[in-house]
Amino acid sequence: MKKANKKVNAALIIIGNEILSGRTQDINVINLSKWLNELGVKVEEIRIVPDNEIAIVHTVNFLRKRFNYIFTTGGIGPTHDDITSKSIAKAFKLKYGKHKEAYKLLKNYYGSKNFSIGRQKMAMMPVKASLILNPSSGAPGFIVDNVYCLPGVPSILKSMLGGLNNKIKGGKKILSRTVSVQTVESEIAKSLENVQLKFKKVDIGSYPFFRLGKIGVSIVVRSSDKKKIDDCHKEIVSFLKKKKINMIGEK
Amino acid sequence: MKKANKKVNAALIIIGNEILSGRTQDINVINLSKWLNELGVKVEEIRIVPDNEIAIVHTVNFLRKRFNYIFTTGGIGPTHDDITSKSIAKAFKLKYGKHKEAYKLLKNYYGSKNFSIGRQKMAMMPVKASLILNPSSGAPGFIVDNVYCLPGVPSILKSMLGGLNNKIKGGKKILSRTVSVQTVESEIAKSLENVQLKFKKVDIGSYPFFRLGKIGVSIVVRSSDKKKIDDCHKEIVSFLKKKKINMIGEK
Repeated sequence: MKKANKKVNAALIIIGNEILSGRTQDINVINLSKWLNELGVKVEEIRIVPDNEIAIVHTVNFLRKRFNYIFTTGGIGPTHDDITSKSIAKAFKLKYGKHKEAYKLLKNYYGSKNFSIGRQKMAMMPVKASLILNPSSGAPGFIVDNVYCLPGVPSILKSMLGGLNNKIKGGKKILSRTVSVQTVESEIAKSLENVQLKFKKVDIGSYPFFRLGKIGVSIVVRSSDKKKIDDCHKEIVSFLKKKKINMIGEK
Repeated sequence: MKKANKKVNAALIIIGNEILSGRTQDINVINLSKWLNELGVKVEEIRIVPDNEIAIVHTVNFLRKRFNYIFTTGGIGPTHDDITSKSIAKAFKLKYGKHKEAYKLLKNYYGSKNFSIGRQKMAMMPVKASLILNPSSGAPGFIVDNVYCLPGVPSILKSMLGGLNNKIKGGKKILSRTVSVQTVESEIAKSLENVQLKFKKVDIGSYPFFRLGKIGVSIVVRSSDKKKIDDCHKEIVSFLKKKKINMIGEK
């Protein structure tokens, strides 16, 4: 079973004019990326596109052939600006219509009397899609091939991820180790570059921060190989000590 | 002077593994989009890409031909993972080297004695780029053609926008009017769709919210035409009243 060593990647497509206009702060990216990382899937590209069929179809078709998994957020609600389901059907050239299982689910959830036309629209999707169950508000997401369509409301999206855990076949998990230091990036740039040159398969990131009146840098080492991370970390700590740079946090 | 009616658009390129991995919550998108909107520039696509030269070069070259303005964030600092400047030079096939004016600025800022090799790296960029001055930490951003390269640290990025105000030639500003109502989307979906069909040039968005224990929907009407917004708003308010839906906020 070599499978767990395979690299598995994903791209996210965030759909919504409200994100592009700056009206709404996206927080789905951070939730999806962290969850996928836990499953051994690395998010390698994210695109934020408008509620526009051409843009969605093009973006989905471009990315789905290049990444193992695609996740879309937004646009599966009941209003006229929710066009993700129809666009996905178009991207895959699939029949768009009343999804029997989704219709039944929604009818049960709302009760026959309250199952209005607006609510019925949430059962409209590629008719052969698999459903993603929604424990918090009834309306399901759906899967077509490697494309997973989730809602835009962060709390609802989050509640749906648990049900997907065993559908996603990840590779080796990306681990990380962080050391935060009281310095500026230019003080450590050369030494850090030398460590990076020595550990080519480890990804070393340097992130300046300004918080609580303190300035500092977080040095993050990422790899799927725990030993390499530790060796690399050791070298970093060694040059920090030599330079007498104050370490203020580790995780 | 018909120019102010022209549509002017932009794409943002957020560069950084830390955003893709979910380690860091991006807030530059919201700041840039709001600022651009004020200047009459509509952000129509956003891509988040890794610290990877091929990805940056490809993304910049694809987008810069399709949008009036491109803004990149991140990757212009002094460390080995800051590769935006070099990648932009590559994308435009320009000479990458010590930018004289940037070098002078940085040397003045740090003083000759403290102008370390690490800090000198921040003067490395396409040698013919125009600079974007940085009032908060010295290191400048730069402009090549329609591509504006800004840092990733939000507070620094924000401090640099003021200096760009008269470089950006926007079109007509996109205005918006929002009404928040105490209902669920499915209750208003059909009526809202009818209003949208009547006002084809107005962009009507519907955004459910769950806050302070209340559920509701914000209906946002966007257009560059104030009169159209007001007319459209009137129709929405009219059907809300007819349906006896409680309006809980307007802006």
